[in-house]
Amino acid sequence: MPGYLADMFTHATQLRVRYGETDQMGYVYYGDYAEYFEVGRVEALRSLGFPYKRIEEEGVMLPVHDLHVKYHQPARYDDLLTLRTHIEAMPSVRIVFRHELLNEAGTLLSEASITLVFVDRSTMRPCRVPRSLVDVLAPYFG
Amino acid sequence: MPGYLADMFTHATQLRVRYGETDQMGYVYYGDYAEYFEVGRVEALRSLGFPYKRIEEEGVMLPVHDLHVKYHQPARYDDLLTLRTHIEAMPSVRIVFRHELLNEAGTLLSEASITLVFVDRSTMRPCRVPRSLVDVLAPYFG
Amino acid sequence: MPGYLADMFTHATQLRVRYGETDQMGYVYYGDYAEYFEVGRVEALRSLGFPYKRIEEEGVMLPVHDLHVKYHQPARYDDLLTLRTHIEAMPSVRIVFRHELLNEAGTLLSEASITLVFVDRSTMRPCRVPRSLVDVLAPYFG
Amino acid sequence: MPGYLADMFTHATQLRVRYGETDQMGYVYYGDYAEYFEVGRVEALRSLGFPYKRIEEEGVMLPVHDLHVKYHQPARYDDLLTLRTHIEAMPSVRIVFRHELLNEAGTLLSEASITLVFVDRSTMRPCRVPRSLVDVLAPYFG
Repeated sequence: MPGYLADMFTHATQLRVRYGETDQMGYVYYGDYAEYFEVGRVEALRSLGFPYKRIEEEGVMLPVHDLHVKYHQPARYDDLLTLRTHIEAMPSVRIVFRHELLNEAGTLLSEASITLVFVDRSTMRPCRVPRSLVDVLAPYFG
Repeated sequence: MPGYLADMFTHATQLRVRYGETDQMGYVYYGDYAEYFEVGRVEALRSLGFPYKRIEEEGVMLPVHDLHVKYHQPARYDDLLTLRTHIEAMPSVRIVFRHELLNEAGTLLSEASITLVFVDRSTMRPCRVPRSLVDVLAPYFG
Repeated sequence: MPGYLADMFTHATQLRVRYGETDQMGYVYYGDYAEYFEVGRVEALRSLGFPYKRIEEEGVMLPVHDLHVKYHQPARYDDLLTLRTHIEAMPSVRIVFRHELLNEAGTLLSEASITLVFVDRSTMRPCRVPRSLVDVLAPYFG
Repeated sequence: MPGYLADMFTHATQLRVRYGETDQMGYVYYGDYAEYFEVGRVEALRSLGFPYKRIEEEGVMLPVHDLHVKYHQPARYDDLLTLRTHIEAMPSVRIVFRHELLNEAGTLLSEASITLVFVDRSTMRPCRVPRSLVDVLAPYFG
């Protein structure tokens, strides 16, 4: 019965906060979450059998175009974080990842929405999502 | 004649891209812009005679609550960047900084809007902007 | 029969290279290894049932006093690294960690020797290793 | 009268500690000094009329081979640091930079010695220092 459930691919991974990621407030520095979200993207793609490296090997780059982060509660040193990563639409010339970061108690610490664009390395112009990535995502989008 | 000019405080500073801020695309890593914008905030406040350190010395912390960055063009190694920082409204329990990052040719590379909240270090609860910061900003807001 | 084997505590952990840790040479930036070695220290102590956090909770800080890294071969994006961490002597006012970083093929990429000093947070002066850490290390040192 | 003064090229530059470079001890994280020393190298070369970028444009890479840092006193948030960079010998297949980092009071915070090797990008093998760099350094070495 199509339409009852939103099409979506979801993946979760874990991260341990490193000392160098804290700042003198005792919180994870707000810029360091970008690296966490990147780990979420990369591990989500790896779980699909599609290592991010392969995108670059196919001559495509995937720079970030738009980053939006809401910080609800701080992450702290040595926290074992769960990072949920969602792809909610089949990518075209761009791909949107939505992330939720939770601590061990299950508290939502932050949320992010990140848009990346596919760029052809030879022309340095936007291009369509590689066919190989569409293929691994197709089962999740009716 | 009120209304002709928006009330605003604006400041500009310069930054040189460091090697460690590049990634293997040859671009500044998307997470490293957060540190640039922080330099913009800090230097804007310093230019008002209000070093950010003083906020913490007054027992107030200023964690980031919301970060939104649009990446139009990449910054590259050794680029001498100009970072414009705007405060467009008198802060209350939060302060919003708007940033524009330009390269030496004057091309707009990225834009950001960043909201920080004042937190009382003793109670760890939101609090109002310190009076001392209101005083230095007052001349810019009618 | 004492003397046949060097007294030593050894631990190994794994790390995945993140995109933001690469630079435009396509190598892990030389400064980012410091964070890897810290992960090695922290996981080594955790495996002893002694989370590094506990040191700070006991009012002791452990700043780095001396860092020596030899870079033999570069680590690269997405490499799954093995980090071996050795403690070769019972700590006194300082503790020395020795590290070896290897890639999946078993190639030695880099080596480090890092000395940290115990500092009493209340006096900000050097102090002796906490008794609780001596206790968990004692079985490894005759 | 040769021998009275050691042959040496020396340069000094200034750096402001960024918030994200602090950790929860309130010190600059030990790994972040690597980026400071890199700024010292780059600005030293720039002062010779030899931007580091030119080395890469000539098809030569300059990865770090050996890093040794002694941390005497911590750098702290917003410190305005002076970084002295010395080249004490004409480079051959390697170049050695020696650094001293001081705070505004003139206290020596840390020292480093960093060896980099010239690598031919086409063969990925060690090569000799580019002639153009020898030329700008020659006046400092009898």
